[in-house]
Amino acid sequence: MTEPRAAAAPDPAPRASWGPSDVPTTALLTDQYELTMLRAALQAGTAQRHSVFELFGRTLPEGRRYGVVAGVGRALRALRHFRFDDESLAFLRDREVVDDVTADWLADYRFSGNIWGYPEGEIYFPGSPLLVVEGSFAEAVLLETVFLSIYNHDSAIASAASRMTAMANGRPCIEMGSRRTQELAAVAAARAAYIAGFETTSNLEAGRRYGVPTAGTAAHSFTLLFDSEREAFRAQLDALGTGTTLLVDTYDVAEAVRTGIELAGGELGAIRLDSGDLAEAARRVRRQLDELGATKTKIIVTSDLDEWNIAALSGAPVDGYGVGTALVTGSGHPTSGFVYKLVARAVDADPASPLVPVAKKSTNKTSIGGRKYALRRLDERGVAEAEVIGIGEPARGDHNDRPLLVPLVREGEIVGDEPLTAARERHVRARAELPLDARKMSRGGPVIETIYVEPDGDQLLSPYRSRR
Amino acid sequence: MTEPRAAAAPDPAPRASWGPSDVPTTALLTDQYELTMLRAALQAGTAQRHSVFELFGRTLPEGRRYGVVAGVGRALRALRHFRFDDESLAFLRDREVVDDVTADWLADYRFSGNIWGYPEGEIYFPGSPLLVVEGSFAEAVLLETVFLSIYNHDSAIASAASRMTAMANGRPCIEMGSRRTQELAAVAAARAAYIAGFETTSNLEAGRRYGVPTAGTAAHSFTLLFDSEREAFRAQLDALGTGTTLLVDTYDVAEAVRTGIELAGGELGAIRLDSGDLAEAARRVRRQLDELGATKTKIIVTSDLDEWNIAALSGAPVDGYGVGTALVTGSGHPTSGFVYKLVARAVDADPASPLVPVAKKSTNKTSIGGRKYALRRLDERGVAEAEVIGIGEPARGDHNDRPLLVPLVREGEIVGDEPLTAARERHVRARAELPLDARKMSRGGPVIETIYVEPDGDQLLSPYRSRR
Repeated sequence: MTEPRAAAAPDPAPRASWGPSDVPTTALLTDQYELTMLRAALQAGTAQRHSVFELFGRTLPEGRRYGVVAGVGRALRALRHFRFDDESLAFLRDREVVDDVTADWLADYRFSGNIWGYPEGEIYFPGSPLLVVEGSFAEAVLLETVFLSIYNHDSAIASAASRMTAMANGRPCIEMGSRRTQELAAVAAARAAYIAGFETTSNLEAGRRYGVPTAGTAAHSFTLLFDSEREAFRAQLDALGTGTTLLVDTYDVAEAVRTGIELAGGELGAIRLDSGDLAEAARRVRRQLDELGATKTKIIVTSDLDEWNIAALSGAPVDGYGVGTALVTGSGHPTSGFVYKLVARAVDADPASPLVPVAKKSTNKTSIGGRKYALRRLDERGVAEAEVIGIGEPARGDHNDRPLLVPLVREGEIVGDEPLTAARERHVRARAELPLDARKMSRGGPVIETIYVEPDGDQLLSPYRSRR
Repeated sequence: MTEPRAAAAPDPAPRASWGPSDVPTTALLTDQYELTMLRAALQAGTAQRHSVFELFGRTLPEGRRYGVVAGVGRALRALRHFRFDDESLAFLRDREVVDDVTADWLADYRFSGNIWGYPEGEIYFPGSPLLVVEGSFAEAVLLETVFLSIYNHDSAIASAASRMTAMANGRPCIEMGSRRTQELAAVAAARAAYIAGFETTSNLEAGRRYGVPTAGTAAHSFTLLFDSEREAFRAQLDALGTGTTLLVDTYDVAEAVRTGIELAGGELGAIRLDSGDLAEAARRVRRQLDELGATKTKIIVTSDLDEWNIAALSGAPVDGYGVGTALVTGSGHPTSGFVYKLVARAVDADPASPLVPVAKKSTNKTSIGGRKYALRRLDERGVAEAEVIGIGEPARGDHNDRPLLVPLVREGEIVGDEPLTAARERHVRARAELPLDARKMSRGGPVIETIYVEPDGDQLLSPYRSRR
């Protein structure tokens, strides 16, 4: 191979000791090149140059009109646990990824810089500076991979989830995609979906770890375990109470509904439909339930739903949507396309040296140095009309501008922690500000333009794709 | 909401203690309904009925000609750590997901049954019984979610990876998608890609945890950190040696190549191209390198590659492919669509009772009970011609049949562990057996049919979609 320093024979025996509890640090959830760059920069004396990195997306995923920020809380926790312990350092030395000097530097690693960012649940657009990371090159470059992993995944899920909850229009959405994605991505997905308006998740670890409300009663296998559907329903009602949700499509839906209501004495919480033409089936079942006097029994539907199916069911008597695959795979866009770019750095290691903007040739000059501000410009009715981005302090004016960046880390100290409910509420507010076009299911560009304000006050449109 | 037993107010404060080390068990990486079903079955006296669950896919992802099994080793590790510890039980009781009887039962949970499966790296087709899980309903149903999460993710990545390594046709592929997927899904993706023929990964945790060889040298930010590209290259060569890979497209490619070869004294390991028309750029750079005498310096390309781009570059002078987004998102198919179905169960809790096949109405009778066998039928030249699936023991015949199921767990004891290199070698052999059509990049159905053998010896074609 072409990476002589990197390759090593794979360990022939699986690590017998490995268990899920064995993730002592997030520091190795990192691309190797972050560490080889550090090594070379330490040796060359440039590692301490003060630097600004920015995490942003050049575009929204194709056809999307807005994106939703998620992953902030998880990124801050990853930062807290970003430590090179003895085992990590032994591994890195063994593989000759780092030398002794670099290993010694890593042993003391603590991020001591500043981070600003869009808070969780906020809406974003092309070019929005979702994270601005300021510190030495050495300490800031190392965070690239884990920050991108978290933001690219969590925001992809939240962005899909927000379209679904918008289409559900107040009817509750239940996240149930755990089985369709990697087992720990599933936990993060449940959290992101909750931020974007889902009511509950089937994922128990998301309940335990993040306090997301959990839901779920029975699968087809439960009905099949019993000698008859009636026995299965009786067992479920006995154990879980009449408020439970019965799955009624294992055999014959109409018969199952009749049996369920009879056994629950008309007090059944809900029935779940998991196959067939859901709109038609829901109408039929609603009629049957009402005829049986079970007017309060709800109807939950759950078969391969996405935002379009949810929209199509808006006229059907459905009381809740269970969403799986489409949610956890970002409904066609499983990743957000965010990058983490060095936008400015000092000319030398002196902390007092000024920052100079840097950019590779292929990018535009608007990748400008220094800490940015970002504002959501609202019209007189409070409707968003532009994403305004510039350097330094925004000019005073008569605009109705809402600042978007908040401090997340101050001199190494995490200051951006907040309860998940705050992110959830923020999302409701931020989405409500968007022009009505944001709710269109048809494909289109961002609902508002991104505007860059030059230091001299000139405004220019985003170089990033931003078609309406 | 419609799930009155489940919902609870979210924890207002983030769990300050949570860190990546805080995943003490895999047992909560589970959908809530597995536990409510258990609770109801325990109360009804059906939980101990001997049961057979099967993990399989009804189809291959649209357009794919074969699938690759990955996740076996991870599923076995998840099983080993599937324990309900005090914190998990306290959470489940708190939320009223389980009652005291169920919690007591869970506290002693150890899977004591048998599991057979396709070994890792093997090829699969529609209907292939990838896992056959035999035990009491109670112990087997609980494993559904975590097994599906692992298999659905890891096999999706391996299936995409195999197409890429097939197209690379011996040229090394480097996995570098960590930043595009959830941070722990990234580790699993690197492992799955390695099974399917990738040579290295950028992911350090995959190196530490699974022994996957790692690779990576520098990003554009490294070049931008220095006052000139020449200084950056010199620093990299000083630290990492002349065998390193220089990224040459930050400014002007031709000038960067000239500088790199000059500084490395003609001995440079490789250059990396990350933008532009890669085929054209590779040809130009190859010519330049050869003219400079650097005939051994390799060319690595890395910009948004997928299996089609890799195929398109087969005529270009490229020595290695770095693949990111397309790999970790399964190249259009981020999940495999596997399900975990109860296919047979005993009529009562007596361990000696016979199994009866079960199926919900909408499925076909070929969801037949009992432990299946699965064979890859080969023609006289050793080329695969059918996937043969039946119940019990296969009939003796003059077919050239290769058995596919191996024991993974025997009476609760894990017997299916193997080194990752064994899976990697198996994949090479299994892929080489496939008809040549398997390598076509055009969309199509599975390259071989799935044949079900009835207990009376009759053969029938798979009910699952299996178009050529």
